Amino acid sequence: MSSETIRLLISCADTSGIIAAVAGFIAERNGNILEADQHTDPEHGAFFMRVEIDPTAFALTRENFAAEWQQVAQPFGMRWRVHWGSDIKRMAILVSKESHCLDDLLWRWRTGELHVELPLVISNHDDLREPAQACDVAYHHLPVTPETKPEQEGRILELLGEANVDFIVLARYMQILSPTVVDRYENRIINIHHSFLPAFSGPRPYRNAYERGVKIIGATSHYVTADLDAGPIIAQGTIPVDHRDSVHDLIRRGRDLERVVLASAVRSHVEDKILTSQNKTVVFA
Amino acid sequence: MSSETIRLLISCADTSGIIAAVAGFIAERNGNILEADQHTDPEHGAFFMRVEIDPTAFALTRENFAAEWQQVAQPFGMRWRVHWGSDIKRMAILVSKESHCLDDLLWRWRTGELHVELPLVISNHDDLREPAQACDVAYHHLPVTPETKPEQEGRILELLGEANVDFIVLARYMQILSPTVVDRYENRIINIHHSFLPAFSGPRPYRNAYERGVKIIGATSHYVTADLDAGPIIAQGTIPVDHRDSVHDLIRRGRDLERVVLASAVRSHVEDKILTSQNKTVVFA
Amino acid sequence: MSSETIRLLISCADTSGIIAAVAGFIAERNGNILEADQHTDPEHGAFFMRVEIDPTAFALTRENFAAEWQQVAQPFGMRWRVHWGSDIKRMAILVSKESHCLDDLLWRWRTGELHVELPLVISNHDDLREPAQACDVAYHHLPVTPETKPEQEGRILELLGEANVDFIVLARYMQILSPTVVDRYENRIINIHHSFLPAFSGPRPYRNAYERGVKIIGATSHYVTADLDAGPIIAQGTIPVDHRDSVHDLIRRGRDLERVVLASAVRSHVEDKILTSQNKTVVFA
Amino acid sequence: MSSETIRLLISCADTSGIIAAVAGFIAERNGNILEADQHTDPEHGAFFMRVEIDPTAFALTRENFAAEWQQVAQPFGMRWRVHWGSDIKRMAILVSKESHCLDDLLWRWRTGELHVELPLVISNHDDLREPAQACDVAYHHLPVTPETKPEQEGRILELLGEANVDFIVLARYMQILSPTVVDRYENRIINIHHSFLPAFSGPRPYRNAYERGVKIIGATSHYVTADLDAGPIIAQGTIPVDHRDSVHDLIRRGRDLERVVLASAVRSHVEDKILTSQNKTVVFA
Repeated sequence: MSSETIRLLISCADTSGIIAAVAGFIAERNGNILEADQHTDPEHGAFFMRVEIDPTAFALTRENFAAEWQQVAQPFGMRWRVHWGSDIKRMAILVSKESHCLDDLLWRWRTGELHVELPLVISNHDDLREPAQACDVAYHHLPVTPETKPEQEGRILELLGEANVDFIVLARYMQILSPTVVDRYENRIINIHHSFLPAFSGPRPYRNAYERGVKIIGATSHYVTADLDAGPIIAQGTIPVDHRDSVHDLIRRGRDLERVVLASAVRSHVEDKILTSQNKTVVFA
Repeated sequence: MSSETIRLLISCADTSGIIAAVAGFIAERNGNILEADQHTDPEHGAFFMRVEIDPTAFALTRENFAAEWQQVAQPFGMRWRVHWGSDIKRMAILVSKESHCLDDLLWRWRTGELHVELPLVISNHDDLREPAQACDVAYHHLPVTPETKPEQEGRILELLGEANVDFIVLARYMQILSPTVVDRYENRIINIHHSFLPAFSGPRPYRNAYERGVKIIGATSHYVTADLDAGPIIAQGTIPVDHRDSVHDLIRRGRDLERVVLASAVRSHVEDKILTSQNKTVVFA
Repeated sequence: MSSETIRLLISCADTSGIIAAVAGFIAERNGNILEADQHTDPEHGAFFMRVEIDPTAFALTRENFAAEWQQVAQPFGMRWRVHWGSDIKRMAILVSKESHCLDDLLWRWRTGELHVELPLVISNHDDLREPAQACDVAYHHLPVTPETKPEQEGRILELLGEANVDFIVLARYMQILSPTVVDRYENRIINIHHSFLPAFSGPRPYRNAYERGVKIIGATSHYVTADLDAGPIIAQGTIPVDHRDSVHDLIRRGRDLERVVLASAVRSHVEDKILTSQNKTVVFA
Repeated sequence: MSSETIRLLISCADTSGIIAAVAGFIAERNGNILEADQHTDPEHGAFFMRVEIDPTAFALTRENFAAEWQQVAQPFGMRWRVHWGSDIKRMAILVSKESHCLDDLLWRWRTGELHVELPLVISNHDDLREPAQACDVAYHHLPVTPETKPEQEGRILELLGEANVDFIVLARYMQILSPTVVDRYENRIINIHHSFLPAFSGPRPYRNAYERGVKIIGATSHYVTADLDAGPIIAQGTIPVDHRDSVHDLIRRGRDLERVVLASAVRSHVEDKILTSQNKTVVFA
């Protein structure tokens, strides 16, 4: 049901009367507010809001919403976007060889927990073809070498465009995407990094965590930016470890964490619960 | 700063336009909404809202608020209350012999983390007189036997009344309060029970948890009702334990949990973040 | 590698010299101890030990171990068992309609994380045939009605016997097994219950947790005994929830917990890390 | 009771027969082993062991233990130490202005949970004199400027020496100790750092965590080495945070975490449960 709702996301400079203006606008058009969340960042004087509207009696449609909404959005100088719940988001998954995040996303998608369309999986290896195809999802194997990388990224962009993809999940994709791709899908590429960032960014985080002798390991899901592992963090999780855990144990135990943290971030994105600002996220519950 | 704000708490049957009406009412009177939280319970068709208002430019005062607010509250059939932040809540603590929850509340109070006035501590034992008096808090020792219980409860009510107490914290008070006391302070008596309720209600929860061989222990803070350990739950926490933990270890480890869970519940109460309904709580973050 | 080791599990009355006797026996026969764990229960005067031995140079074999070991086991009155790591345990999974625990166990088994043989899945429904058969695991559909239950349980026992099954996982199997089955596989049937036992035993724990308004939900994995949901607890986990979570949300969020808690219990069982006593478990790390 | 036991800690190159030799040596001298823990680090071929012995019937004393023990220690090339439980460890606490860790340690010490002698508290400020003196603990105020630092550190060493201190807890001491002090008390200075190291080492970790937009914060207790915040980690903990948490909230919420993580590390140290190797710790449970 929730997937059929209208979601309106707003950010602007903080001032008086924003909630009254937004709620008044919706009420006057017979919109019932099902959920309203707001956040004020006093450090930057910024205001963030998310409203979920029951579409049943709402007087506006996707055709005429923007024009009318300007009367509220303009005076407050709002950045805003609206998502019509009947539009199912289209997700692409990029993977390398590790299967656990892909398998988990496929499972959530098959059971309907993750309410998206999934037209394709792209990988620089052929290893994970079978689970994708078992779910009737197209699998594209695009091997990458330093020489072929620009060409293959071009091919990736083509495939994403042809499939009309809304957002991309890097489910343990061990390649760095070039700025061309990152810019095209700003705040729409979700990565899972297998450490509690900012600790252990870059390669081999479990090995580095082991060497440092930490007593907790973590996983971090974030939007991808041009700076490696430095984009806005969406979700993080940690689990305790101890001296008995080998690197192999950390990898094994981390898998359970990675898939849950990634799924949580993807879910928040799909439900339009994330706003970004100052390289940080507001993630409404 | 937050303690000087005006907090308005509302519950009513869910319908369209509530947020617009509330936010409009406040905006028209120059109130800036600092925080707004709402919750809809679809099972019971109930709506809950908390609004925190900057008092600086707000046109209403505690003298004229209620009269004007009726124009919103009445049509929606709202139950509501307002807290003027300049009123510091007055807290009483009831204890028996265990010191950890009292010590922790005293510490949070002394350091200003817990923004309340603390006129008195009451106990059925004399053991904890020293920490209370070291903080210049009056300590009343009212021993309780089956025979003297009614009389002593009468004395407790007198003391609470004389001290003009707003709410009561049972910081490991090992006596059951009679309905007279409970009714007088409905949703204003906060207890900490040393188990994850509803498991191990009643006496000796750590011993019973040990006997059952659980792998987690918990603590629960709840409003006190006439039914023992059955009131609306405000906050809960758990920690892992294992076969090496004796009953004594559970008691020791549980102390760290109890004081944090209780402090969290008291904080939510003090900041007027709790609404109750159907023997459950809505606790805004 | 660990799967090829010899594991010796011991319990007896506590006294002096047990570790010396056990370690001395092994050292004299060129056994290198890879891991040794012990636990003393002072309340019941009970001693528990687990030793993992490198088989490479060890002088004893499965043929002559028991006879020689009597010289240690007998004087101390030990209950003991030994597992030769080259014996891969044979696991059966019983399911009803919920797929998440089955899917998770299948995934761990396919990737080699769970080092068992998996000859069959049995269900009282036909819903989960596909994931089992996609992994080339036999799927037996045995519908159960009050009338056919004795007959079908007989059939289950036959299937388990024919497949030479060592232990059984109830991966959300919504039938109560009769004492005949439970006794035959004492301490070898692992159930996952979707609550933090002893709270919310019996049917519909998420609904009951929702009604009670708890702020944490849990999952419990335990050995099955004749008393419903009352057997020795192997593993438990909890996650925080709040007033926004509907029963449906609890069910969804609980799935992530159930599969991890169940997998942890199964792993401990497969690695021979569990001893039971007094309806409780010792689970070595 | 546990505090009266004899604790023997061992590390050496891994080989066969160590446990048999150790347990045999103790059994032959009528020592009952109350607890035995061991760990093998396969990467470095290192073996670690901790044995807790009931002193009641044990034939050896602190006078003749070392001489006899050489027959086991020497052939295996063991590094070892023994702690006679009747020796109560002497702890010094160094603080600056933040009270929560000091208050918590004082509370655990007063209630007997932390079984140490506490001859003195040293601070570069005078702020926390009152809680120390309220517990009859000597408080030394040694203000530090860049010019006076060497002199004041000399004075600190004098005070520690005069008080015959066994180990030092930096309970939010905001000064870097010079190598002279660190070397004198190798693996005997326990610090609490208010982040999940290695993230946010150095000053202002909560501010930096806030700027980075992390969704978890942490605390780390470690032995102090010459490299700032880089010593062997003893204990870590984390708690979830979100976009609503200001820097001030992180500081407040972090306090609850810091004091528990520090207390856990101190407890492990006091009970002789920590061995160090490769700038990492083995912390037995």
